[in-house]
Amino acid sequence: MKIISDVKFLIVGLGLIGGSYAEALTDLGYEVGAITRSQKTIDYALKKGLIKSGTTEVSREYVEKFDVIIFGLYPKVLLSWLENYQDYFKSGALITDVTGVKGPIVYKVQDMLREDLEFVGAHPMAGKEVYGAENADKSIFRNANYIVTPTEKNTKEGKEAICQLGRLLGFKTVAELSPEKHDEMIGFLSQLTHCIAVSLMTCKESEDLVNYTGDSFRDLTRIAKINEDMWTELFLLNKEELLSQMDLFIGKFTELKDAIADSDTEKMKEIMRLSTKRRSYFDKK
Amino acid sequence: MKIISDVKFLIVGLGLIGGSYAEALTDLGYEVGAITRSQKTIDYALKKGLIKSGTTEVSREYVEKFDVIIFGLYPKVLLSWLENYQDYFKSGALITDVTGVKGPIVYKVQDMLREDLEFVGAHPMAGKEVYGAENADKSIFRNANYIVTPTEKNTKEGKEAICQLGRLLGFKTVAELSPEKHDEMIGFLSQLTHCIAVSLMTCKESEDLVNYTGDSFRDLTRIAKINEDMWTELFLLNKEELLSQMDLFIGKFTELKDAIADSDTEKMKEIMRLSTKRRSYFDKK
Repeated sequence: MKIISDVKFLIVGLGLIGGSYAEALTDLGYEVGAITRSQKTIDYALKKGLIKSGTTEVSREYVEKFDVIIFGLYPKVLLSWLENYQDYFKSGALITDVTGVKGPIVYKVQDMLREDLEFVGAHPMAGKEVYGAENADKSIFRNANYIVTPTEKNTKEGKEAICQLGRLLGFKTVAELSPEKHDEMIGFLSQLTHCIAVSLMTCKESEDLVNYTGDSFRDLTRIAKINEDMWTELFLLNKEELLSQMDLFIGKFTELKDAIADSDTEKMKEIMRLSTKRRSYFDKK
Repeated sequence: MKIISDVKFLIVGLGLIGGSYAEALTDLGYEVGAITRSQKTIDYALKKGLIKSGTTEVSREYVEKFDVIIFGLYPKVLLSWLENYQDYFKSGALITDVTGVKGPIVYKVQDMLREDLEFVGAHPMAGKEVYGAENADKSIFRNANYIVTPTEKNTKEGKEAICQLGRLLGFKTVAELSPEKHDEMIGFLSQLTHCIAVSLMTCKESEDLVNYTGDSFRDLTRIAKINEDMWTELFLLNKEELLSQMDLFIGKFTELKDAIADSDTEKMKEIMRLSTKRRSYFDKK
């Protein structure tokens, strides 16, 4: 009896996330190949058994062997890669990605894609503060969410397969959102929080404050250690949404500031009660 | 051989912090008494062995037995309590507090205090998201900082004794700062972070976002569950300092927002590199 299928996975871009996908799928018994820029990364992944094969050269002969192609590349590189090499894909291949912003990626990819291929966007909301396939670790998916962002162009089968991929990878939850809803959600929950952490961390020279720092400041600035290339690209891809979330935050922050300036204790307490109530939703999970 | 002295401690205001002080000192073998509003709290503390004696009535006969008086009260209550009852204190008694803002407390107390008493301000930077002596737990001091805020009115002996108290209570670090430096530090590291967390949490109705929430948002909003009475009082006691820290933060946040609006990738990356560098100081500890 066959529990898993013969589907072959190709990871394009073997970084932290691509490498962790490779580890998870290989461990389940699937055949996983990889194309990435550096031969050192391929050598490492082969040695560690993350992949069965890998190359730095893109060739029709290699690419056409695979049924599912997973892009672990930065958004801009993803688009130009597809433009250059989509002719090599096997007819009927299913394509997905790991990009943190969906609207500007999903529709462009679907518009440029060959008719006999299907692209279903996905965002594995997992990460670490370190990078590269050398840090690949499938356990980062265990407490994380995997969001699939289908459009009208997607088939039920394609969408189901990519949801199934999320479950195979071991994510805690697999959910579906439109690309627009995804970008709104990520603008608030992830991008705005990173902007806040970065701004707080750059407010003042803080080396002498280390000795007095408790958990509050550490918690709020943990994500202020940030990969500037990736996040700059992600912020700009979601620019309008992020700017409106930043305005929303400045509005609320200024409301609290005005209440303090006016010594308006009733207003201050009202804001804090709302905050306490809303935060309690997040305790239950 | 006597390892500890006969010094008797009186805790006025047996809440979470007062109760935890009582537990720590009693466990070390000191005699600890308490005055607090509710008889239920006294009964609980006696039953749990946190204190040796306790009362809800303030009497000369009881108060004059003690050598060190520790105020675990809210700032405003502290000042009126002292005004009403300082006549009862034993001559030479040493007084300290646990208030989170020092400038507006320390000088006022020292100005109103009898000549034969000494007040040394201190701030145990520890807490929990629960309140009351029922949650007393001396282990909250273990990874926390204890800041003593002496002034020119203090004697070397008084200051030393209160530093020693911090070490006895089991704090990780005991440090000295002027009341002004303390309030600047706490305005930035604690009050500003609470204002940010509260503003982020009140930005939008977020119940439907719980399913997508990762660690970033949870970390940034953990302290958004807040005791509105205590924090309103603390914010207003440190109003000028806090407002200037909030302005500083809005300035930095707006700088990043403008860079995003202008798609100024160089500026964005420069800010993120500074943020990453500064956050790394906090990794070492």
